[in-house]
Amino acid sequence: MTVKQVRVALVGAGNIGRAFLQLMLDKAELLRQRHGFEMTLVGLADRSGAALDPAGLRPADILSLKAAGRGAAALPAHGQPGMPPDELVRRCGADLLLEASPTNIVDGQPGLRTIETALGLKMHVVSANKGPLVLAYPHLMALARQQGVALKHSAAVAGSCPTVNIGQRDLLGCQVARLEGIFNMTTNTILCRMAEKGLSFDVALAQAQAEGIAEADPTLDIDGWDAANKLVILANSVLGLPVTLADVEVEGIRGVRIEALQRAQAEGSAIKLLATAAQAGDGYKLAVRPTTIPLTHPLARLTADQMGIIYYTDVQGTIAAVAGQQGVLTTAGAMLRDVVAICG
Amino acid sequence: MTVKQVRVALVGAGNIGRAFLQLMLDKAELLRQRHGFEMTLVGLADRSGAALDPAGLRPADILSLKAAGRGAAALPAHGQPGMPPDELVRRCGADLLLEASPTNIVDGQPGLRTIETALGLKMHVVSANKGPLVLAYPHLMALARQQGVALKHSAAVAGSCPTVNIGQRDLLGCQVARLEGIFNMTTNTILCRMAEKGLSFDVALAQAQAEGIAEADPTLDIDGWDAANKLVILANSVLGLPVTLADVEVEGIRGVRIEALQRAQAEGSAIKLLATAAQAGDGYKLAVRPTTIPLTHPLARLTADQMGIIYYTDVQGTIAAVAGQQGVLTTAGAMLRDVVAICG
Repeated sequence: MTVKQVRVALVGAGNIGRAFLQLMLDKAELLRQRHGFEMTLVGLADRSGAALDPAGLRPADILSLKAAGRGAAALPAHGQPGMPPDELVRRCGADLLLEASPTNIVDGQPGLRTIETALGLKMHVVSANKGPLVLAYPHLMALARQQGVALKHSAAVAGSCPTVNIGQRDLLGCQVARLEGIFNMTTNTILCRMAEKGLSFDVALAQAQAEGIAEADPTLDIDGWDAANKLVILANSVLGLPVTLADVEVEGIRGVRIEALQRAQAEGSAIKLLATAAQAGDGYKLAVRPTTIPLTHPLARLTADQMGIIYYTDVQGTIAAVAGQQGVLTTAGAMLRDVVAICG
Repeated sequence: MTVKQVRVALVGAGNIGRAFLQLMLDKAELLRQRHGFEMTLVGLADRSGAALDPAGLRPADILSLKAAGRGAAALPAHGQPGMPPDELVRRCGADLLLEASPTNIVDGQPGLRTIETALGLKMHVVSANKGPLVLAYPHLMALARQQGVALKHSAAVAGSCPTVNIGQRDLLGCQVARLEGIFNMTTNTILCRMAEKGLSFDVALAQAQAEGIAEADPTLDIDGWDAANKLVILANSVLGLPVTLADVEVEGIRGVRIEALQRAQAEGSAIKLLATAAQAGDGYKLAVRPTTIPLTHPLARLTADQMGIIYYTDVQGTIAAVAGQQGVLTTAGAMLRDVVAICG
């Protein structure tokens, strides 16, 4: 058996990027034996700049460097201080770009430029970064098609939960009347704790921040924008709707009171931050808002580390998927499945 | 846009076959517009024999005939009394065979011969029939590969629940430590009713038989063989294990007592007929048996019309899928998704 060589470039070496580097080490043998390919890391970019080596950077070296609090630019012999990611992409000669830099929903940069550059060079792209997809999905997909390469993003919508994959591949021949999802772990954790422990929103948020579950600036999560981002990507990729954030009614969880959660519980319900797309006329209505659902609903009992989706279809009934133990590793695992789908 | 013509032959015109014929009518426009192909039914076989027409049989005619209690052989001008399905396959010139005849787990016939004949003629095959897959999975897959055609069977393992698809396509790069599934609706319905209504096994079974949910001879379902069939297909198709029914420890639900169900309920658990594959040494242990699971388990609250699966993986956490409103239509819907995956 011949083993195919795949040259990859990684942009973003935060928690997800580093988890992916670790997977490159841990999964090298499985990829070679079961899927017939080997990855070589020919480039890496982070905030410090970039590092390049056509012969292959060693993921272990990068992980040590990052563990020591230093950036790619500091890598002996290969570091390039200040090199922006799109220049790395132009210079590294990769076959596939892994985009794991932070989501920017204002203008999608620098991820949008990085992905456009990669597609322009006929590189496949696997993106966990939501910004470029939320802002420019139809444009990026058209570019990928025109260039004859793949743009995959299953890690960008609820970790390893196969939200996009079920919608694109298992519902063939169906009409989707409605989809509902719980896509944001921070708000799900806060609502679970408010309901279970009787904590106020402010206390539950402060606790989640102290544990590193919520960010210091929690706006993106708490106000529903992260869930809305994922809904926009699903609406584009599964429902074929060229929508953006402006098409989603968004309400976060700041206004959810303990009393309401407790009343819901007493009535056999739960309040969850639900993202929905519901058929209405010729199109769909998109919304993210705290919603009361009965405990018999497949998403009502999701615990803090779970995310899930349910599709309501005409000829396949309802299909729900719930992914548990979600976190940085499972998001990197979802990037890996996209890589295998392209290269394997 | 050019519309591709796909000639299909259907073997089996029971509940599932007829639901598929109805879908051919209801979904014609969606298939043409969204997926760019049209199906023409060039042959049909049932117990009475077959009917052939290279110009296309009309699904509506077949449905009327069946509604009148008559078989394909009685179709004016095109009926062929007594023609066996493999001869239909040889003579009809189809591009794709739809196999929806009843499961025979003794020797897989006549489905096995029908599928082998179709693959030998380089026809794609979509099978909802479990028998041939349970008995000869590696052989049939090797034949399909050698002939350069597809053999798909997502409807054979738990209706529209994407059990096989998630395993084959979403867990790429993962190691599956364990899978658990509830794959049989009859036993799930009986156990649900025993628990909810305090019915004995005998009464719940008789009730299910009176409603047409359980068959007159319920052995295949009640004794766990239907669930075991599905587990064997999953073990072959997802885990790559060339196993057969002889490799599965099978125990049905005849021995489940109301008292045990009630005790489980009181302890926050449920008893379900669970099919499991669990990593053990270099291989997997396969079993189907009544199993006590906590109510926090993603499959513990499945209602009578639901089926589900959970995969425990190393780098994607747990992934559970639950399909609801399952029945004849959703199984036909799953066959349709396989057809679209092949032809679309």
